[in-house]
Amino acid sequence: MSQHVTIEDVTPRDGLQNEPTPVPLAQKLLLIQKLAAAGITHIQATSFVHPKWVPQLADADQLAKDLPPLPGVQYSALIPNLRGYERAVAAGIRHLEFVLSASESFNHRNLNRSLQESLALLEQVTQRALSDGVTLRVGFSVSFHCPFEGRISTQAVVKLARECRAIHPWRLALCDSDGMGFPNQVRDAVRALRDDLRMQNAEIALHFHDTYGRGLSNSLVGLEEGIREFDATTAGLGGCPYCPGASGNLATEDLVDLLHGLGYQTGIDLEKLLDAAEFALQFSSRPYQGHLLRAMRPGTCQKNELRPVP
Amino acid sequence: MSQHVTIEDVTPRDGLQNEPTPVPLAQKLLLIQKLAAAGITHIQATSFVHPKWVPQLADADQLAKDLPPLPGVQYSALIPNLRGYERAVAAGIRHLEFVLSASESFNHRNLNRSLQESLALLEQVTQRALSDGVTLRVGFSVSFHCPFEGRISTQAVVKLARECRAIHPWRLALCDSDGMGFPNQVRDAVRALRDDLRMQNAEIALHFHDTYGRGLSNSLVGLEEGIREFDATTAGLGGCPYCPGASGNLATEDLVDLLHGLGYQTGIDLEKLLDAAEFALQFSSRPYQGHLLRAMRPGTCQKNELRPVP
Repeated sequence: MSQHVTIEDVTPRDGLQNEPTPVPLAQKLLLIQKLAAAGITHIQATSFVHPKWVPQLADADQLAKDLPPLPGVQYSALIPNLRGYERAVAAGIRHLEFVLSASESFNHRNLNRSLQESLALLEQVTQRALSDGVTLRVGFSVSFHCPFEGRISTQAVVKLARECRAIHPWRLALCDSDGMGFPNQVRDAVRALRDDLRMQNAEIALHFHDTYGRGLSNSLVGLEEGIREFDATTAGLGGCPYCPGASGNLATEDLVDLLHGLGYQTGIDLEKLLDAAEFALQFSSRPYQGHLLRAMRPGTCQKNELRPVP
Repeated sequence: MSQHVTIEDVTPRDGLQNEPTPVPLAQKLLLIQKLAAAGITHIQATSFVHPKWVPQLADADQLAKDLPPLPGVQYSALIPNLRGYERAVAAGIRHLEFVLSASESFNHRNLNRSLQESLALLEQVTQRALSDGVTLRVGFSVSFHCPFEGRISTQAVVKLARECRAIHPWRLALCDSDGMGFPNQVRDAVRALRDDLRMQNAEIALHFHDTYGRGLSNSLVGLEEGIREFDATTAGLGGCPYCPGASGNLATEDLVDLLHGLGYQTGIDLEKLLDAAEFALQFSSRPYQGHLLRAMRPGTCQKNELRPVP
């Protein structure tokens, strides 16, 4: 089984979209360059949603056009609909994540439409993507727990996966958006996708938040199941707008250190990644939520902790 | 396999011994009562070491005498030598943890003697304990990584375990004192103790720190191996005096939430445990290092974060 693990760093998208103050475009580009310099090959750069809903990413079109063409670096962006698809492709992005939710309630609250409507949009986007040669990954928000509906069953994930894969066998990302997923759920979901839908490990990515400190445990179970693609954010930025007080995504640096310690290869330089994490932390309105930076560069975190929480 | 997991909360000992300001005796007793009220049955109340080395626990003799006799609650204390044994037993403690280190360097720095000298002391203490009817658990500091010697091999742990168990088959606790242990090391060590020394799962306890965020991952692997006894500290207090900037022990509340979510029973009331964690947090000189309290009672953590770091 492959010992190489791909990290998709989603800081510029999932990390920055939750910060009350929008980060200037130039700083976003600098962050992206620092991520690439650390050896991150997959970067989720932005999201093409309506700026009314996510003003922090209102610069998506310009940012996408300004992305530095770096050898070996693949940029992606999140889209919720056809309009997002068109904007993203017009701005030059060729790898897109189409997002919908594993729960009906979350789909309504997060995307303002029913799951059935989202699936119809996925069908439209798929037709365009196939004819444009654009790659999609389909991301399932709240794959393990929903702030409105509680625990999500493996059956619900499999049902949604079956509907999506009937449209086209795109790769799927299971996202633990509020961080309340448990390791046994991750194991069950991965196994069910393989057993019931004959999916390959390489068709499944995992996206964890660390709200309850389970990001690494959930990743560990995914690794043991053979999954080799994980999302994370540098410095653990991010969160969930429906989970007040919640901490952010799993910190990329915590995940990379676990992976290296277990003997996996990522191609990532940990010291340079910590440089990127230090840089990213200045955009956080909260104390550092990861672990590695605190352990290895405590001064950086203390500076951040002295700022009043807004 | 049993679904009951025993938590030994070591906050009054491992948590408070690392705080720069000693906590008043009355407050320690209040903390212990809050832990017991939450359903914690095993509490490591203090350490009988020389007050010159750990002034925070200089009140050990008085505290032990003042411990409230609560039904179903078992108090323990840490001892490094025969003098500690005598003080502990004189103060009424019947369950003791004899501590030594999995690395020679850490034994010298932490206990000021060679490992051979510690083993000789264990022999003396064992004779006394057996004749007094006192129970020992033997704790191995730095069982997975040592700040001075680096990664600790499974062979080194097995060798030390063999020497200890030749003295008497006491139960053992593997302690990840600097939090740098990895899940595969935990699995290897537990399996080796069973395979090479024919130890039972019930004879092994695990004690994790969360410096690098791996406390829950390491616990998960221990659980999967069948271990049912874990140490933790409420609010994640504690740390390692040789690891500057390091965060503390694995937070009891994070562990309990994981256990309950996985279907294990602990007998612990999570809300009352969070009350104890809120109480414990006021003694911490650092921002909250766990996860659950931040997710479920964010206001408590923010108050703590506004205090300047000394």
